[in-house]
Amino acid sequence: MSDEHAIGFMDSGVGGLTVVKQALKQLPRETVYFVGDQARLPYGPRPTEQVREFSWQMANFLLRKKIKMLVIACNTATAAALPDLKAKLPIPVIGVIAPGSRAAIKASKSHRIGVIATEGTIKSDAYRQAILRQDPSVTVISKACPKFVPLVESNEYHSAVAKRVVAATLKDFKSQNIDTMVMGCTHYPLLRPLIQNVMGSHVTLIDSGAETVNDVSSMLAYLDIANTSATKAYPDEYFTTGSPDQFTAIAADWLELPNFKATHIDLGSEQNG
Amino acid sequence: MSDEHAIGFMDSGVGGLTVVKQALKQLPRETVYFVGDQARLPYGPRPTEQVREFSWQMANFLLRKKIKMLVIACNTATAAALPDLKAKLPIPVIGVIAPGSRAAIKASKSHRIGVIATEGTIKSDAYRQAILRQDPSVTVISKACPKFVPLVESNEYHSAVAKRVVAATLKDFKSQNIDTMVMGCTHYPLLRPLIQNVMGSHVTLIDSGAETVNDVSSMLAYLDIANTSATKAYPDEYFTTGSPDQFTAIAADWLELPNFKATHIDLGSEQNG
Repeated sequence: MSDEHAIGFMDSGVGGLTVVKQALKQLPRETVYFVGDQARLPYGPRPTEQVREFSWQMANFLLRKKIKMLVIACNTATAAALPDLKAKLPIPVIGVIAPGSRAAIKASKSHRIGVIATEGTIKSDAYRQAILRQDPSVTVISKACPKFVPLVESNEYHSAVAKRVVAATLKDFKSQNIDTMVMGCTHYPLLRPLIQNVMGSHVTLIDSGAETVNDVSSMLAYLDIANTSATKAYPDEYFTTGSPDQFTAIAADWLELPNFKATHIDLGSEQNG
Repeated sequence: MSDEHAIGFMDSGVGGLTVVKQALKQLPRETVYFVGDQARLPYGPRPTEQVREFSWQMANFLLRKKIKMLVIACNTATAAALPDLKAKLPIPVIGVIAPGSRAAIKASKSHRIGVIATEGTIKSDAYRQAILRQDPSVTVISKACPKFVPLVESNEYHSAVAKRVVAATLKDFKSQNIDTMVMGCTHYPLLRPLIQNVMGSHVTLIDSGAETVNDVSSMLAYLDIANTSATKAYPDEYFTTGSPDQFTAIAADWLELPNFKATHIDLGSEQNG
């Protein structure tokens, strides 16, 4: 059976585009609807309840546009809202934490894994729990990196300031003997060269968002809801609660889509659950 | 919710152990029940209907032992029996073709992908269809390699004969400009060094079985049926319709489990559907 409806992706900001980028490469027949909640980012420092509320607003917006699957392309929102959304929505819901944990366990030989993420994700302890649930022999060393998301969203992720911030934030990891590090926030892959440079080439960086596309693909096949028509049935659409211009500048660079165009939306009037 | 029941794996022979090896590494809390139908291999040259019948016999044996998920760790059996088993069994059933196809699309930059497999798998055209369903821009070059499974099952996969057979079988691929090759039979990873040597280091070899463990892991998380107890609830068990000694020799070497022990079973009296 073929299902030509779109897959919905949602994030606090541009980070989720790291997931979309992989989806466009690996699933070229699937239509993408993306929502970034730039007006209210960063999500990391916000209370769990509020992140859950915002997540429901994004999910309800996407549901009204008719999607066949929802991808929470944000670690903070996955930690706060995945169980609730998964239990209550009539479509499959996929988060980024399980795929990131799984890829880290697969890559690590030393059984010492680092996790960097937002305060919200680190406080939730979701990565440590997901990793240990699968393999109790692993030691997880976690650190919140509250300065990373603002660097990316302000389009400064190539700057000298970014380089200094990343080096200072990660310096404690150098003595931890980890061989694998989870980039547990979908914004962080934009800082990947800087992170790799600090950690050294012997540390494997795991892109939780990119790994998630494997799960999306696997679930499309398992549930038999992939689009098997020759082409996409609908054009991809990108929405932001913030400034379309700022969003478009980063997205066009990151997705390498020169004609990328985003539409402004307001989520204040969406239901919360 | 935690489900401590075993995951069932089935193959025509020892090839499925390449999947089990990854499962033991990535999912150390999950109990493995494995059946290899050595008495009736190779499956590759057999009619589809017969492979389906044998697959049902293995599946029914594992079901009676109470499994929570079935992994068809054999490409020939996946091509012949996955849709039927998936539609009729009360537990999730996972095959090796979708994960192998997906990993190949992800790895390929040139969009030219080679597939080597048994005659049965190549005749079914299942790989080409799975790859094109996901990405129609790919060119798939397929070849049946009927001599590979017997080489592995006779424990000759390190021999000079194996080296010559692999070189002769794959020589036509050298001019095909592929950058990725799917080892579309779970026996072939035992020949990996020889295959890589012929194809050259610029060709990425995809281990369809190892990729499948990502799907298993992803499905355990999605369906919330992973075992979250501290240890396995039951010991792993390995069954063969052939000689336990021959099976044990290869398995102990390949799985690096010195105390590996296999039990002989007879599948002739199992139901067929």
